[in-house]
Amino acid sequence: MLVQTYLDMLNKKSVIRTLSEYAVARGKEIGYENVFDYTLGNPSVPVPDCVTKTMTELLQTKSSMELHGYSQSQGIPEVRAKVAASLNKRFGMDYTAEHIFMSSGAAGALAHAFRLVTVPGDEIITFAPFFPEYNPYVNLTGAVLKVVPADVKSFQINFEAFESMINEKTMAVLVNTPNNPSGICYSTETIKKLAEILKERSERFGHVIYLISDEPYREIVFEGVDSPYVSKFYDHTLSCYSFSKALSLPGERIGYVAVNPRCEGADRMSVMCAQISRGIGHNCPASLIQLAVAENLDVTADMSVYERNMNILYNELTSLGFECVKPGGTFYIFPKALEDDAVEFCNKAKKYDLIAVPSDSFGCPGHIRLAYCIETEKVERSLEALRKFVKETY
Amino acid sequence: MLVQTYLDMLNKKSVIRTLSEYAVARGKEIGYENVFDYTLGNPSVPVPDCVTKTMTELLQTKSSMELHGYSQSQGIPEVRAKVAASLNKRFGMDYTAEHIFMSSGAAGALAHAFRLVTVPGDEIITFAPFFPEYNPYVNLTGAVLKVVPADVKSFQINFEAFESMINEKTMAVLVNTPNNPSGICYSTETIKKLAEILKERSERFGHVIYLISDEPYREIVFEGVDSPYVSKFYDHTLSCYSFSKALSLPGERIGYVAVNPRCEGADRMSVMCAQISRGIGHNCPASLIQLAVAENLDVTADMSVYERNMNILYNELTSLGFECVKPGGTFYIFPKALEDDAVEFCNKAKKYDLIAVPSDSFGCPGHIRLAYCIETEKVERSLEALRKFVKETY
Repeated sequence: MLVQTYLDMLNKKSVIRTLSEYAVARGKEIGYENVFDYTLGNPSVPVPDCVTKTMTELLQTKSSMELHGYSQSQGIPEVRAKVAASLNKRFGMDYTAEHIFMSSGAAGALAHAFRLVTVPGDEIITFAPFFPEYNPYVNLTGAVLKVVPADVKSFQINFEAFESMINEKTMAVLVNTPNNPSGICYSTETIKKLAEILKERSERFGHVIYLISDEPYREIVFEGVDSPYVSKFYDHTLSCYSFSKALSLPGERIGYVAVNPRCEGADRMSVMCAQISRGIGHNCPASLIQLAVAENLDVTADMSVYERNMNILYNELTSLGFECVKPGGTFYIFPKALEDDAVEFCNKAKKYDLIAVPSDSFGCPGHIRLAYCIETEKVERSLEALRKFVKETY
Repeated sequence: MLVQTYLDMLNKKSVIRTLSEYAVARGKEIGYENVFDYTLGNPSVPVPDCVTKTMTELLQTKSSMELHGYSQSQGIPEVRAKVAASLNKRFGMDYTAEHIFMSSGAAGALAHAFRLVTVPGDEIITFAPFFPEYNPYVNLTGAVLKVVPADVKSFQINFEAFESMINEKTMAVLVNTPNNPSGICYSTETIKKLAEILKERSERFGHVIYLISDEPYREIVFEGVDSPYVSKFYDHTLSCYSFSKALSLPGERIGYVAVNPRCEGADRMSVMCAQISRGIGHNCPASLIQLAVAENLDVTADMSVYERNMNILYNELTSLGFECVKPGGTFYIFPKALEDDAVEFCNKAKKYDLIAVPSDSFGCPGHIRLAYCIETEKVERSLEALRKFVKETY
C-alpha cells in the first residue's frame, strides 16, 4: 500500500508553484516577456565567474579519488575548516571544523537541525510571515510547528504573542532573517530581546530552548540595514545556511549547519548529524561542489539588481497607496493588498498579467509577495500594468 | 535536549570504519603500501575521461541558470527521460521519465523507497548476509528490518526460512544483488522463485508486497555470470541505483529510484517521492552531476581490475583450504573464517597486516569480508602474508 500521508500531500498543491505554472503557460500565449511573473524566488544573476573557474580547474588538476571519492558524512574536513574560518573572520565567531556539518542546501540543514533537538510531539515555534515549506519540513519529523502571528507594522517579532505561546513543550524556535516573504531583517534589538526570553524560559522550563536560524538570504542585505549574525546573541544557536541565493546555484544543493561552540551539546552535534543522515538518506552534498564553494566562501554573485528592483517597487507601491514595510534584504517585498482578500486581489491582478503570490500560506493573510529576482527592465515595464490595475480596480 | 536516539548511535561505531581507521593508522607506522587493507568498498579505478570531459564542457557552454538553477524535486526532466531510455534499451523495460526519481545515491533512493510503502511498525525483510547500514536506514523510518538467515552454501536465498518469516506485516522485501558482502549475484531461478512467493503472499495477505532492489553493483558482474535485472521478474519492484561504483564517483551522491510501470501506484510514486523529500530534507542531487551522468549512462569505468583481483584471491583462498563461494560480481569476497569466531580470526590476521572485516555485522557470523577494490599488485603481495598467517596460526 502506498503511504497515505504522501498521497494526501499530492492534493495540496503549492500556491506558489501553481501560480508559477500559470505564468509560464500565459507566457506561451503572449510571450513570457509580457508576463510580470513575481512568483518564484529563483536567483536571476549568474554564478560568479570565479566559481566556474574553480570547478573547471578542479576537474583539470585533481585526481578522480580526490575529487569524486567518498567524503566523510559530515562533509570534507578541509571544506568544513574553511567554512569555520570564514565565519570566524566575518562574524567574530570561534567555530572549528567540528562545528560545521555540510548539507544539501538549507532544506537539508534544517532537516538535521530539527532532528537534533526535537522528538515527535515537541513544539517548534516560528514567526509569521513564514516560508510555507516549514510546515512539511517540521510536521513530517513528528514535531509540531506553532506559528506566532505577525507584527504587521514592522514584521519584527510580535513578542507579546510569542511569550503567550512558548511553553514546556517548546524545544526550538525557528527564525528566518532576512525574511522570506517580508524581506525584513530582524534588528539587533529584536534578536537581543528574543535571546533574553529564550534564556529566561530555558531556565524556567529546565531545558535548553534551541534557536534554529535559517539564513539562506544572509548575504542579501541592503545598504545601511542592521542585520546581525544571529548566533552571536544566543549560545544555543544552530545556523542553517545555503549557498543557493548568494552564489546563484540553487540546483547544486549545498549549505551547512554551523553549531555555536557554546551551544549545549556542541561537541557532539555534527557527529549526531551524520547519524541522522543514515536515517533520512542524506549523505552530504556533492564533493565537487563542496570543494568549489570552499574556495569562494567570501564571494557573492553581483546582487545589486535586487536592491535596485526593491527601490523601484517600494517607491511605486507606496506612491500608489499600498501599506508596505521597506525590505532590508532578500528579493521579496510584502505589501498589504488593497482589499482584505489577498487571493481575490491576486486573481484580479492576473488580468493585467501581474502574477503575485497571496500571503495566506505565509501565515499572514491580506498581503501579497512579489519575488523581484527578475530583470530591472521588466520590473520597470511592470509599473504601468500595476498603475493601470490599481486605477481601474480600486 | 539532544535526541537520545542519535546520541546512543554514537557509541556504536561501525566495525568497518574502526578497522579502516586502524589500517590507516598502521600505514603511518609501516607505510600504507605494507598494510593489506581490505576494509572499505571505495571504487579504486578512475572516473571515465568522458565524464570529466562532459562536466568541463557543461561548465564552458551552458548558462548559469541552465546548469545551476533549481531542478524539479524529482530531478531534471531530460535527465529522467534519458535514464528511462537507457534502462529500456538495456533491460527491455518500458519506463518513462515519470517512473524515475533522481536521488542522492542509493542511500537517498532507499530512504524514499522505504517511506513510499511502509509506515512505522511495518516490516521489511532482507536476506543475510546484508549491508549493515540497512539497520539504521530502515529502523530510523520506524519500520522494522527482519533478516532471513543466510544460505551459506550458495548465498542465494534461504527460501525455507524466508517463507516462515513473511507475514501480514511484511510490506516490502529488500534484495541486494550483486551482493555486498558475499559478492554473489542472485540467479534467474532465485529471482523467479522469490517473485512467485511474493505474488502468492500478496494475494493471501490482500496487500501488495513490494520488492525493493538495491543495485549499486549492478554493472560489476563477472564474465559468464547470470545476473538478471530484478524488476523484469516482479511488477511491484522499486529499483534503487547508484552511479557511485560503476562510474567511480561516490562523493557526487547520485542515483535514482526506477519504479516498474506495472507496479501498484506507479503513476504516483515519483511525485510522492518529491513529497517525502520535503520531510527528510533531500532535494535531489546536484544539477551539474545530474546533467553529466545523463550523457554517460551506458558507460562504466574500466572495472576489469575487480575480476582480476577476485580470481587471484579466490584461487589462493580455496587452495589454502578456505570454504568460499565464488563471487559473481562486486568487489567483495566472503570466505568462511578458519575458526568459528570471525572477530578473533580478524584480530589474529592483523598481526600480518591483513585487515579484513569480520562478518557479524553482516548478519552471518563466522565469515570475513575482503573488499578487493585495491591495486592488483597489492593483492598479489598480500598472498604471502595470507599464507604465512594461515600456516603459523591454523
